[in-house]
Amino acid sequence: MKITGEMLIGARSVRGSEGIVRSINPATGEEIGPEFGGGSAKDVDAACSLAARDFDAYRAIDLEQRARFLEAIAQGIVDLGDLLVERVMSESGLPRPRVEGERGRTVGQLKLFAGLVREGRWLDVTVDRAMPDRKPLPRADLRAQKIPLGPVAVFGASNFPLAFSVGGGDTASALAAGCPVVAKSHPSHLGTSELVGRAIQKAVADCEMPEGVFSLLVGEGNAVGEALVAHPAIQAVGFTGSRRGGRALVAIAAGREVPIPVFAEMSSINPVFVLPGALAERAETIAQGLVDSVTLGTGQFCTKPGIVIGMEGPDFDRFERAAEASIEAKSATTMLNKGIHSAYEHGTKQWAGEAKVSKLASGQAASATCGGQPMLFATKGEPFLTTPALMEEVFGPATLLIACRNEEEMVAVAKHVSGQLTATLQLAERDIELARRLVPVLERKAGRILVNGFPTGVEVSHAMVHGGPSPATSDSRATSVGAMAIERFLRPVCYQDFPAALLPEPLQDSNPLHLWRLVDGKLQQP
Amino acid sequence: MKITGEMLIGARSVRGSEGIVRSINPATGEEIGPEFGGGSAKDVDAACSLAARDFDAYRAIDLEQRARFLEAIAQGIVDLGDLLVERVMSESGLPRPRVEGERGRTVGQLKLFAGLVREGRWLDVTVDRAMPDRKPLPRADLRAQKIPLGPVAVFGASNFPLAFSVGGGDTASALAAGCPVVAKSHPSHLGTSELVGRAIQKAVADCEMPEGVFSLLVGEGNAVGEALVAHPAIQAVGFTGSRRGGRALVAIAAGREVPIPVFAEMSSINPVFVLPGALAERAETIAQGLVDSVTLGTGQFCTKPGIVIGMEGPDFDRFERAAEASIEAKSATTMLNKGIHSAYEHGTKQWAGEAKVSKLASGQAASATCGGQPMLFATKGEPFLTTPALMEEVFGPATLLIACRNEEEMVAVAKHVSGQLTATLQLAERDIELARRLVPVLERKAGRILVNGFPTGVEVSHAMVHGGPSPATSDSRATSVGAMAIERFLRPVCYQDFPAALLPEPLQDSNPLHLWRLVDGKLQQP
Repeated sequence: MKITGEMLIGARSVRGSEGIVRSINPATGEEIGPEFGGGSAKDVDAACSLAARDFDAYRAIDLEQRARFLEAIAQGIVDLGDLLVERVMSESGLPRPRVEGERGRTVGQLKLFAGLVREGRWLDVTVDRAMPDRKPLPRADLRAQKIPLGPVAVFGASNFPLAFSVGGGDTASALAAGCPVVAKSHPSHLGTSELVGRAIQKAVADCEMPEGVFSLLVGEGNAVGEALVAHPAIQAVGFTGSRRGGRALVAIAAGREVPIPVFAEMSSINPVFVLPGALAERAETIAQGLVDSVTLGTGQFCTKPGIVIGMEGPDFDRFERAAEASIEAKSATTMLNKGIHSAYEHGTKQWAGEAKVSKLASGQAASATCGGQPMLFATKGEPFLTTPALMEEVFGPATLLIACRNEEEMVAVAKHVSGQLTATLQLAERDIELARRLVPVLERKAGRILVNGFPTGVEVSHAMVHGGPSPATSDSRATSVGAMAIERFLRPVCYQDFPAALLPEPLQDSNPLHLWRLVDGKLQQP
Repeated sequence: MKITGEMLIGARSVRGSEGIVRSINPATGEEIGPEFGGGSAKDVDAACSLAARDFDAYRAIDLEQRARFLEAIAQGIVDLGDLLVERVMSESGLPRPRVEGERGRTVGQLKLFAGLVREGRWLDVTVDRAMPDRKPLPRADLRAQKIPLGPVAVFGASNFPLAFSVGGGDTASALAAGCPVVAKSHPSHLGTSELVGRAIQKAVADCEMPEGVFSLLVGEGNAVGEALVAHPAIQAVGFTGSRRGGRALVAIAAGREVPIPVFAEMSSINPVFVLPGALAERAETIAQGLVDSVTLGTGQFCTKPGIVIGMEGPDFDRFERAAEASIEAKSATTMLNKGIHSAYEHGTKQWAGEAKVSKLASGQAASATCGGQPMLFATKGEPFLTTPALMEEVFGPATLLIACRNEEEMVAVAKHVSGQLTATLQLAERDIELARRLVPVLERKAGRILVNGFPTGVEVSHAMVHGGPSPATSDSRATSVGAMAIERFLRPVCYQDFPAALLPEPLQDSNPLHLWRLVDGKLQQP
């Protein structure tokens, strides 16, 4: 397989004619060939029209074949071998173990959804049997299932070139739901995107899926993405990125003649509450774990701990000293791209410039281009509560320690933070009472609450929630990681008094697909 | 219990000071006392602040008590007896049997949700057990449940003074989910709303619920409703009404600093496809059933059949004649209010004025004020496909017959219609092949598809879907009727590595609430 710089529109490879987009190695600042041609409005329309044309054919394909298709994509990504790993490394600056780990996660994610598709519980089959003799009125035979929404637009994320991009969680869950996908490459990893896109395109052909089930577009600037979200064929959007970008897509989607849902995972500062008992017992261990989490992947995770809240006093001082030492022992590592690197420099400068914020320590300075230098800042509860800028995400290896005067102030900080992907409690047994005050507050703020862990590292499983109230995401009722992600792309349909000859297979009396069913309000095992 | 013209803010009765709102008897045009005082921005804030204050207390109350609270509301509505029935009749023009039936439905709805609350399956308890020895990385203990979103604003619907208003489906499902409700009375049935509101207020007191769990506001014009949706405490909105009203609320909700979901059920023309075999077999029976459905409740149902599509020819002519005769045998009946009556007059005049639309027949003219005269119109497939105005809902007892030249044109009409609450197929055995072409199209257009029935009459059960793609609703993934309606007001939260002492009850190892649980991807019966 070769990287050609083309887009993939159904079964075709198409060279874009609207401008040139180039991949840059963030570690060296050098261009990586080939050049990519940007797509036009016509290309967007071609991809979306194919997706719309083939939606019915794709959703009608039986679940076993759909599951095998997802597995074929997974195998195709594995088969790309080192060509893919090296391309990701050069386009993202990420080290080999991280890239290989992310590839494993991407493949595992596709397989999880293949398993889900086979089991079919997400169809939510519900049967209310007819009651012809009910008084005063008979009850009709009512059967409901979930069906896919239609073609989904997927935007690649800068920080997960594999797991949240062309073949990532949004694509896997949309395809699992029965929705064709029109993906847009992230401009930072165009070659990676093309390789994964070609693996999907090959799986489409090998599994004899209709070609419109997948397309991959490239765009110079925002025009292609905007046209994609505005296209009448698109029925939902998956996005992971900045708040500004997410909100722009939400506005376009809301302004359409037929508005559509946008599942945008945007920004989060992931507060970590270090409670007094925990600090007394293990200030140094927590500090080390925290700094490891803050600097992991050069701090470029949506779940990076951005603020750390404790109670002032000798234990917190000890914690600060330990965190300083840990930060100082860390080196600058390459950030994903120039834009992210300058935003990080800007954000940390802004923190440093705040009157009541002090810079405690920094890691070793960068030698390469785009090196993100780890930094540790500190402030007090009161200035945090009154400085809106401190609630903005600084994407990169920096965190802000916040010393509160007492429990009340700590609870006030918890109440003050905006919507988050995660919130964390570091606690010891004697902190349980304070934790019981914080948990109900944090439940209303975050999609995931952790105890004695760190929020980086998001398991792909059934119980995972990678979502949260605005501004963390655009829809707090959804998750973009884990099995529940499939629910974003489904809607219920009820079939009333359908004759057997017309009933969709999942709803037939004989339960030919061996599905879990809710019959007259009682769950029944297949 | 007495109607005082006051609002209910928590446990208090408050006389509004911003203007006067009056109930009018649509049958006589006469005012019904007492006068209601309109609420101010301060009143909105007082109700919302109480709801926010008491949200945590309410959601912490155990499920059995929450279920009993819903049952107490149901009993309270029954206990209002004839006082309520007569007030609804005088404020809505609806006849006694319909009002009593709607009361039964409202009470049944509250009881359905009480049962759901007790069973707790909607908590979606999901447990992924820790795998401390997994390589390369251990898996944490991950447990998820659904929690309520927060205070919900509920707007009463004009056409269901009980079932979709102050104590209707939105309120029942929001309270069941654990969300406080701030309702706004529909100006057409202020007294009805106050009575039901007082029954809820009494249930709050009797069941020792925190007072902020329910408030009822009155507003002159739109200011109170707009302030309610804009209030930071409100976390979701339930609305049934016009497309203009729904879209206005959606825009306010999207423009908030923290946007919130709006579940607006707006407009639908509910296409009925009468297939050739069915017409050959029973044109007259279908015509009679259709006209009964069109004129039921003076055509004031969101599911009223607004267009009827058949294939031209002798059987369709026979069907038209029979429908004419049926319409002519119907009388005008009182519409809900003056505004709805004039919109109906305007809408039918507009149809009559379209070049290629003819008025086939009308029922007996109205004697009383606000009488809605049944009307039957006809057009052909081609003008329907090219006249956008014919896709607008005309709310009232009128329908439009559309004669298509052939199957292709019929399928084209199905593809052309916008999002709907329902779509119906009247078919005979020999129509199955044509139906198989139509069903996949209609699945993408409607929330419910019926065979050989009529869409009015919406069962409140587990499999019901009263929703559909835009413009039928603002969120096609939701239903506002039936058990699934609770899902609108819930969001998932994941708890990672929580010690037993902190775990919410539904997630505890011993499963003390006897809930269905998904453990490591396998559903387990309690």
